[in-house]
Amino acid sequence: MPEVAPILGVRALFFDVFGTLVDWRTSIAREAERILHPQGFSLPWTDFADAWRGEYQPGMEEVRSGRIPFSKLDVLHRRNLVRFIPRFGVENLSETTLRDLTLAWHRLDAWPDVPAALARLKRKFIIAPVSNGNISLMVDLARHNNFPWDAILGAEVAGDYKPKPGVYLAACAALDLAPAQCMMVAAHSNDLTAAAACGLRTAHISRPDEYGPNTGETAPTVKVDYTAKDLAALADKLGVQF
Amino acid sequence: MPEVAPILGVRALFFDVFGTLVDWRTSIAREAERILHPQGFSLPWTDFADAWRGEYQPGMEEVRSGRIPFSKLDVLHRRNLVRFIPRFGVENLSETTLRDLTLAWHRLDAWPDVPAALARLKRKFIIAPVSNGNISLMVDLARHNNFPWDAILGAEVAGDYKPKPGVYLAACAALDLAPAQCMMVAAHSNDLTAAAACGLRTAHISRPDEYGPNTGETAPTVKVDYTAKDLAALADKLGVQF
Repeated sequence: MPEVAPILGVRALFFDVFGTLVDWRTSIAREAERILHPQGFSLPWTDFADAWRGEYQPGMEEVRSGRIPFSKLDVLHRRNLVRFIPRFGVENLSETTLRDLTLAWHRLDAWPDVPAALARLKRKFIIAPVSNGNISLMVDLARHNNFPWDAILGAEVAGDYKPKPGVYLAACAALDLAPAQCMMVAAHSNDLTAAAACGLRTAHISRPDEYGPNTGETAPTVKVDYTAKDLAALADKLGVQF
Repeated sequence: MPEVAPILGVRALFFDVFGTLVDWRTSIAREAERILHPQGFSLPWTDFADAWRGEYQPGMEEVRSGRIPFSKLDVLHRRNLVRFIPRFGVENLSETTLRDLTLAWHRLDAWPDVPAALARLKRKFIIAPVSNGNISLMVDLARHNNFPWDAILGAEVAGDYKPKPGVYLAACAALDLAPAQCMMVAAHSNDLTAAAACGLRTAHISRPDEYGPNTGETAPTVKVDYTAKDLAALADKLGVQF
């Protein structure tokens, strides 16, 4: 069992992944170009990434509202792709290409500070993603970026999508911890608001370039327990030695 | 995505844990003595461990049969403890002691070959426990023994206990793999028989001392894809370089 953390008695850190740990925008733009450019398409690739991400919340809302049963994010990403891609004049893609594009979300690159800081935080805390990404997606991102997770928690384990409270509470329950022993780490105030409402501690990470230069949250819009400019700074504030 | 393995197209290795990766008998005997001896008990500690393990299958059978709803193995371990411990003349233990004893299963030591061999196997395969142990138990064993899991799969994710087929199939589904792309690794022929019936590949590991010297399975009693004297030998046979 890990030691108890200073100040707050926190035993586990839960991480949002898309935007907080990985740069989905640059990575999806790169992957889309890699796959579609050889097929003759020249598109505004970051706009393509933004359009795909723009379908993200509406897609999950179909599950959260109960209109469709729980489906893995891979399934939603594929549905969302088919919805927006005609806007870019792209049609008649092969099944192989559609599948390869959908799996681009399994090949996102981490922000540079993340891998080393996670390894450092793991020395003192149980660390797990509590993401809306499915288990296989989280496994592939971890292998791609050397994220040393203790477990993969999140939407697929809970059978619902954040910010529904059941997702945060299922993660706490899987580790036999009270919500106050768990801290949600995210670059998005709405995620932290929902976690705090469940009794979790919260840490905000600044990701100013998430949606392009100077577009992301540099500071939380709500009260949180910690703020940090990146994960290394959070490890400093939590007293994790090098 | 990891490379495809030679010969069989296997992408993921699933591991039984109690007996296959960790020496539950010696560890439980040690932990029971550490906790109970200072309270004045002098017991045959390995018999104590064997008696506790003897309640294991009957406890899970209550869930498998549907007589009780799914409960984490920690909960069953606690029920089983209370059932058998009067046979050793032990009674009136405090709540703290009962809890500490139950969590002894989170502090089991690995067989010596396991940690290095798992790190080696991870270079080529996705690796995950598919154990009847709950998520927090698997996380604690991994932290105690440096098991570098990609994900924690198994009973708690499936909501049922091995050898029910749903446990193996839920693990394959979590990784988006067909059963034939997954290999169950265990020291117990009944586990491998059930996995093979679901379409998984199988590897038997010899653990001759599981229930005491020269008591465990040195060879499978059923047809399997691989046999190995330990995990390092399995890595050799699967062609994983050092």
